[in-house]
Order: sequence, then structure tokens, then C-alpha cells
Amino acid sequence: MESWVDGQPADVLSLKNRGLAYGDGLFETIAVHDGNLVLLERHLQRLEAGCQRLALNVDMSALSTELSTYARCLGDGVLKLIVTRGDSLRGYAADPSTPARRILQGSPPAAYPTAHAEQGVHLFPCTVRLSEQPLLAGLKHLNRLEQVLARAEWRDGQYAEGLMLDTSGRVIEGVFSNLFLVRDDVLFTADLSRCGVAGVMRAELLFQAKSQGIATQITDLSLEQLHQADEVFVCNSVYGVWPVRGCGSARWSVGPLTRKLQTLARALLDA
Amino acid sequence: MESWVDGQPADVLSLKNRGLAYGDGLFETIAVHDGNLVLLERHLQRLEAGCQRLALNVDMSALSTELSTYARCLGDGVLKLIVTRGDSLRGYAADPSTPARRILQGSPPAAYPTAHAEQGVHLFPCTVRLSEQPLLAGLKHLNRLEQVLARAEWRDGQYAEGLMLDTSGRVIEGVFSNLFLVRDDVLFTADLSRCGVAGVMRAELLFQAKSQGIATQITDLSLEQLHQADEVFVCNSVYGVWPVRGCGSARWSVGPLTRKLQTLARALLDA
Repeated sequence: MESWVDGQPADVLSLKNRGLAYGDGLFETIAVHDGNLVLLERHLQRLEAGCQRLALNVDMSALSTELSTYARCLGDGVLKLIVTRGDSLRGYAADPSTPARRILQGSPPAAYPTAHAEQGVHLFPCTVRLSEQPLLAGLKHLNRLEQVLARAEWRDGQYAEGLMLDTSGRVIEGVFSNLFLVRDDVLFTADLSRCGVAGVMRAELLFQAKSQGIATQITDLSLEQLHQADEVFVCNSVYGVWPVRGCGSARWSVGPLTRKLQTLARALLDA
Repeated sequence: MESWVDGQPADVLSLKNRGLAYGDGLFETIAVHDGNLVLLERHLQRLEAGCQRLALNVDMSALSTELSTYARCLGDGVLKLIVTRGDSLRGYAADPSTPARRILQGSPPAAYPTAHAEQGVHLFPCTVRLSEQPLLAGLKHLNRLEQVLARAEWRDGQYAEGLMLDTSGRVIEGVFSNLFLVRDDVLFTADLSRCGVAGVMRAELLFQAKSQGIATQITDLSLEQLHQADEVFVCNSVYGVWPVRGCGSARWSVGPLTRKLQTLARALLDA
């Protein structure tokens, strides 16, 4: 489906755009099912938090209308939203009153092998580490060279995702997923206050787990804790949940809590 | 002057470009005087080092031709070169054979107040810190949100530049400049192996100083060392050298080594 810029069909953007010049913006990747935007409220919450942190001046009302209209036209697929600070002259200084630009791109439903969800996946142990920048941590901003470099570390199809640590060696996330582990019936996921992307599916699964009485902990995680986990899985807002079977020399079996949350995620994506 | 994309006049870029999606690329800001590209060899060296680090597939021969033709048309001004990995579908994985896109943008000569060079400048002490990522350190890549946030910290025209520390508190650079200090006739500048942009003017001044028998040291610098410096200056490839008179509570006078290197830089920019 054709892309939109500020509500109008377009397939190009000005060379003066600060998204290109500095990665000065944010994005959201939203699953669309039957014309509906899955987990829309959480996507908009994260986007608004990011706009506040970066002082981006987004017309949220126009954006909401565009998102729902675009999703109805797309039907089933993936909607990528990019918001940039707009155009400017040379130099980092920005005019705070410039309205941010809204870019919508549609693509067909993600075509991952069904085995990823059914049998589970292996993670490539990436050597690229995530740098620690609390001011940008959690946001889905457009500065993604670390992910580009990490994703280029493997081409072997046996790895569906990569595992990323931060520069201090903590276990953080996948390249395009968040990571959870289960130990003694407690659901753990990394504290993302120094780096990482605070995924929408991660937030939803934490919420769902809590409301079902499952103990959850957001904390720093070591490789040792990962290795000793009873269950490990990755998640994002497009594919839901993939059980993790191995990473490096570590092996895990697919456990009941992973299956339970996978079913919940699937239900959300198919709703 | 109109911009070029891959040698052709253009003012827009595909929405699929990875420069927009991920900041997946590099840039150079080159002073152009009388149709000549100032410090061209050093700009191309840094660009090539960056392309190697990011595995960007740039046609350097086509680029060289385009740069010199564009500079002749521009006459006097600033040429901004952006190189991006090109277009791709959704997802971080890139096709390593895709040719990188070459974007050239021209603007008039930078119009900084002459007082910046003559009387010196004051630096705003930025609270935004530079994160430490050795894989990207030194490169002039397109992931520049830290600089955008730092530059947004001040609007008061009394500050011509900002001072940036890294997350460990080391003194690194300006927002769009490198920083030098002089102490007991030795010229110091920050080690940029963890973060920072290895400026072309910085490299040239280090080279010129060495060839004139001036002792130079590339090392970690503390705020205390900065405060105790005999002279402080910032530099870049567009404005040359600005003496630094103050930052926070610290004050410096403009010294002889600063003036000497400023004259050298001016000569390069006016050649």
C-alpha cells in the first residue's frame, strides 16, 4: 500500500528532513488485523512519552485519524509509523514550533516460519553491545545503528533473533524483540532505564501476567541468570511470543508460562 | 544550490531509505572555498573508515567526481555529504551488495559572528552526556540524537557552543566541534575511542602542531584538567578555531598557541 506523509499519499521525503540528517524522530511498528491497530493505546502512549522526551511537536489528533483510516485501507499487515522533527537548515538547533512530520508505511503481514512460534528459536549471541544512555533508553527512536550492526552479525537462518547485552554485560533484549525469562514461577525482564526499547508487547505481557497473579520482576539480568532460567522467550508487537530454545551453549525447553503468554499474545494479534 | 542524489539533481529521497529509518549512514560537512573542497583528503579518509566500519558499499570514484563538480558549481559555501545504506524493506537486515546512496547538499558560507574567532566564545555546560560505544566512536554517523538534545539545552546567544562530557564524566568535545586545551606548552585533546566525532580539523591541527615541534597528547581529560588549562579552544572544518573564554565558572584568556593554530586553520579555509 502507498505511503502517506502528513495524511497525503507520498513515497518521498525532503532531503532537509531531520529524520534523515540526525535520526531525529521516533517510530512505531504496529500490527494491523482486519483493519484494527493492535495495542494501539500502548503504541500511542510510548510515542507520546518519546515526543515529550525529545520535545517533538506532533499533532496527535491528526495522527490518530490518519492511523485508523490507513489501517482500514491496509486491512491486514504491518503499519510502520515514523515521526520526525520535520525539516531544518544545517545545524543541530531546531525550531521548537516546527510541526513534526507523520509518515505511514504499510506492508503485508510478517511472514515468519510458523516453527518459530511452535518449536521455538535460537538466538545468535551478538558481540555488539548496547551503549548506556538514560535519556534515550526505552524510546523507539530513529538512532538504530547498534541494531543494524548487531543484525549484520549473522546471516545463518538457524538464528531467528540475536541476544544483546549492554556495555556493562547485562542481558537486555533481542535486536528487534524484548526478552523474558522465567525462574521459579517468577517472570523476569530487563530494566530498560539505561538502554533498550520498552516494547509494547513487553508492557502488555507484564500487565496480563500481573493481572493473572503471576509474579513479575523488572530488574538487571546477568548472563548467569539467563543460563539458569527455567524458560526463556522473546516477544514483539508483530509476531507475539517465540519460545527460546538456545543461545550459545545454553539450552532451554519450552515451558508452560511461555505457552500461556504466547496464547494471550496470539489472541491480541488475532482480535 | 540544488541538491544531488547519486549525481542527479533532486530534493527528495525515498521513504524506504535506511538513512531515515535507522540513521544508517554517515555524513561530512566540507568547507568549499573558490570551488575547492577544504581538507578533502581527510574528509574522504574518515568517510572511508566509516564505510568500512559500517560495511557501507560506496562508489568512491563516482563520489569523488560528484564532489569536485558540485564544489565548482557551489563556489563558496558549505557542502554537506550524506551517504546512506540505500533503500530496504522493513527490518534491520541489509543486503550487503546494495550500493550506498550519495547525497550532496550545498549552503552559503557559514555566517558566524567574527567576534567568535576574534574575542573567543563561551561554552554552555551541557547536561546531556555522550554514551560510550567504541564501535561507533570517532565516526560522523547519522545517529545524532545526543547532539540534538544537547543543542536544545541553550537558546541564549551568549553561548556559541556547548561542552559535552561522556557518561563517565570525561571531557570529550563540543556539540559540533572538537575541543583542545593547552597546559605547560602541551596541546591536549580527548581520546575518542569510546565516543565523540574525530573531526577533520582536529586531525589537521594535531598534524600541523606535531610538524612544528609542539608536543601533543591524545588522552582522557577531566573537568579538573580543563579548568586548570592555560588555553582552551574549539575547532571544526567550517569555522576553523574559536578561542574559549569561559564555561560554567571557569575562565581562560586567549593564548599564543590558540592564535597560532587559528591562523593555520584560517589559512587552510582561505586557500
